[in-house]
Amino acid sequence: MTTDAPVSLSSIMDGNSFRIADLDRLAPAEQQLVLRRQASLGPSYRLFYRTPVHAVSGSGAYLFDADGTRILDAYNNVPSVGHANPAVVAAVAAQMAKLNTHTRYLQDGIVQYSEQLLATLPDHIGSVMYTNSGSESNDLAIRIARLWTGGQGIVVTAEAYHGTTELLSRVSPAISGGFPDDDTVRIIPAPDSYRVDTEDLGAWFADRVREAFEDLLAHGIRPAALLADSIFSSDGIYPDPRGFLADAVDVVHAHGALFIADEVQPGFVRTGDTFWGFERHGVAADLVSMGKPMGNGIPVAALAGRPEILAHFGKEVPYFNTFGGNSVSIAAAQAVLEFIQSTDLITSVRTTGALIRSGIASLAEGRPLIGDVRGAGLYVGVDIVSDPDTKAPDSAAALGIVNALRERNVLISVAGPGNNVLKIRPPLVFGASEAELLLATLDDVLDEVAPR
Amino acid sequence: MTTDAPVSLSSIMDGNSFRIADLDRLAPAEQQLVLRRQASLGPSYRLFYRTPVHAVSGSGAYLFDADGTRILDAYNNVPSVGHANPAVVAAVAAQMAKLNTHTRYLQDGIVQYSEQLLATLPDHIGSVMYTNSGSESNDLAIRIARLWTGGQGIVVTAEAYHGTTELLSRVSPAISGGFPDDDTVRIIPAPDSYRVDTEDLGAWFADRVREAFEDLLAHGIRPAALLADSIFSSDGIYPDPRGFLADAVDVVHAHGALFIADEVQPGFVRTGDTFWGFERHGVAADLVSMGKPMGNGIPVAALAGRPEILAHFGKEVPYFNTFGGNSVSIAAAQAVLEFIQSTDLITSVRTTGALIRSGIASLAEGRPLIGDVRGAGLYVGVDIVSDPDTKAPDSAAALGIVNALRERNVLISVAGPGNNVLKIRPPLVFGASEAELLLATLDDVLDEVAPR
Repeated sequence: MTTDAPVSLSSIMDGNSFRIADLDRLAPAEQQLVLRRQASLGPSYRLFYRTPVHAVSGSGAYLFDADGTRILDAYNNVPSVGHANPAVVAAVAAQMAKLNTHTRYLQDGIVQYSEQLLATLPDHIGSVMYTNSGSESNDLAIRIARLWTGGQGIVVTAEAYHGTTELLSRVSPAISGGFPDDDTVRIIPAPDSYRVDTEDLGAWFADRVREAFEDLLAHGIRPAALLADSIFSSDGIYPDPRGFLADAVDVVHAHGALFIADEVQPGFVRTGDTFWGFERHGVAADLVSMGKPMGNGIPVAALAGRPEILAHFGKEVPYFNTFGGNSVSIAAAQAVLEFIQSTDLITSVRTTGALIRSGIASLAEGRPLIGDVRGAGLYVGVDIVSDPDTKAPDSAAALGIVNALRERNVLISVAGPGNNVLKIRPPLVFGASEAELLLATLDDVLDEVAPR
Repeated sequence: MTTDAPVSLSSIMDGNSFRIADLDRLAPAEQQLVLRRQASLGPSYRLFYRTPVHAVSGSGAYLFDADGTRILDAYNNVPSVGHANPAVVAAVAAQMAKLNTHTRYLQDGIVQYSEQLLATLPDHIGSVMYTNSGSESNDLAIRIARLWTGGQGIVVTAEAYHGTTELLSRVSPAISGGFPDDDTVRIIPAPDSYRVDTEDLGAWFADRVREAFEDLLAHGIRPAALLADSIFSSDGIYPDPRGFLADAVDVVHAHGALFIADEVQPGFVRTGDTFWGFERHGVAADLVSMGKPMGNGIPVAALAGRPEILAHFGKEVPYFNTFGGNSVSIAAAQAVLEFIQSTDLITSVRTTGALIRSGIASLAEGRPLIGDVRGAGLYVGVDIVSDPDTKAPDSAAALGIVNALRERNVLISVAGPGNNVLKIRPPLVFGASEAELLLATLDDVLDEVAPR
């Protein structure tokens, strides 16, 4: 069992956590709240930053704390159409007042939304099932892939994180301390475009997938799926070169296995290039799991897929999800989707993302600690290194930047196995003025941390 | 793998499902909607009743369909404080407009609610973690129990249903077609107070638990937990005699294992006797999972437990749940809890439940197909049998009653391995007038199905 294994608390969980030893940094009211919180919630509940944010309200790309201080949110991808987006607020309030029930009754909303959602996906993805979280979607995706292929083998990347269930802890090395003790899982290196020494990252990555599948077969385990998010977010954010995933997905399909696109991070126009992350690579995902930004914070998630694959599962295995597809979650999801489409959000994501990346590239001049600036749309990674030649991760410097930004009321965090990649992943309504504020504040912080 | 095994579609999933062959019973608009729904959602999505309900709005204990017909809801436990409860609607709308974010920021709401929730539980349950569904809570409970005990063995009852994840499919024989192919799981008979021939159901059930634990040990598997809901809802509803679980829980603790109380069904005053189902039996649960009624339909769920057990997990295993404990779900949960407490809901649940049970007992006179009437509070089971001497389940008669009630705009369903136990489990705001309408309609239906 993974849960019995020693664990390393990596970037997803602990890189940027408040430590109780810093309690006296806080005002008395926050100290009290931290202690009450600790007493009732226990140690699983960590807080971000040396000085945690006491969040009280939000609007667009901003949070406001208990003192009324405005804080630029360059981190949160769940409220993707903005904190307290009025269209989502109105849709949820209206549906709450009308009806909130499950999928065993005929309802117009879920049918209409499903058709709208499927219209954003390639034609071969014709069917969708609803859950309450990306975790439930990925857990279901693995069950479905195993039933469809008759195989058990799952391949994931070295710092992947796919969710919270027991099954997903086995395929999430980011939280399981390396190789999980599960002989059906194989872990391959991430396609680290900054550090891997290759002319052709696609061929290199496809070779890693092939080796993993061959190793599974050599151990008598038939491959079921490659499970990956197409920007490799928890591995350190590696979206490029665009298209590099195609060779790997060909390997997957040649083995009769499925490509499960975990779109919890790159989906819903996050990358600014395409509605779904896997589309950037021109690949045909077989199953598409989605979550976080789908309902702007109301729990709602889904698994879309080839209809024949979902139908096979549906006929063989009884599956019912009480809250999954409930009327209010669907209303929230529909409002989000319509906001994305009616505002042409993808265009501003692309523009603002490019602005941020080029701005940081300018800040990097003369500052060797910025080893690499990469990303797609509003998912930007800044690789902080102690030496640009060795490319050695500098977690201390990265966390210093993160906390210095937080002291200046700008929120970002870190990603990657080295806890050294600045993770800039704001609500998608982040515009040019927010990008300028982010860049100016980062410039100040870098002047302090790494003066030219 | 359970998912590879042949499955029996039992009561939870299929006992009361619409069949596409009955499509022409529906009006043209509903036929179209059923076909569109089938095309986009696939065969996992079943509908209740020969004539599905096209639900459009709800209020209190009533649903309204597309024709404006008022339908008495004697089935749904999720909207426990009533469909479209105004207090919950207002709380969600207000919080949505203010802030909806995750638990890595300090927030007052989650701390305040956690303290209120823990105050409803025995003193030894001092800590709580949040998830999005009873499934996520039960999945987490098993991981925690295994880590704490160092054992793997889980014991569940014959028709138990504990959720949708891969791990839970292994401990949910109701959906896995009998004994799951997992050598760490043992399945024991349900404490069927109607059919088991014993003077002392508690001693009998404790013996079953002891045998299962001893069998685990004989196979070198250390017991981790007994996982049960204290009214054995999917087994056929067996809440009595009150206190019978005590001996079994003693056996569990004597083995160093944990009792996980799955309170998704009996919690939040459903039984009318105590706030939590396990309290009716005077037992000390170690972990308490909760879900369905917690937020009146907004996805929110939790796992409470002995603080030392949750803390052990929290220190050893990184766990973060993106939507779990989000501001809006907590606001919904808080409104539900405050409604339960401020209206003294438990008293009306007890009174109305007793009214329903005594009313059905009267209807049973001279009608031998009603073999047994049982329940606690607003969870009532009516055992429909073909012969009161053999007590043979009569699924056809039970489903006939369910569908005849539905045609008269009263919603119930069936439970139990024989699909023959009428499951009456209305929103908790079900009052005397609703009980009278239910009983009068049931009387009419029985006159038709089983005239005296």
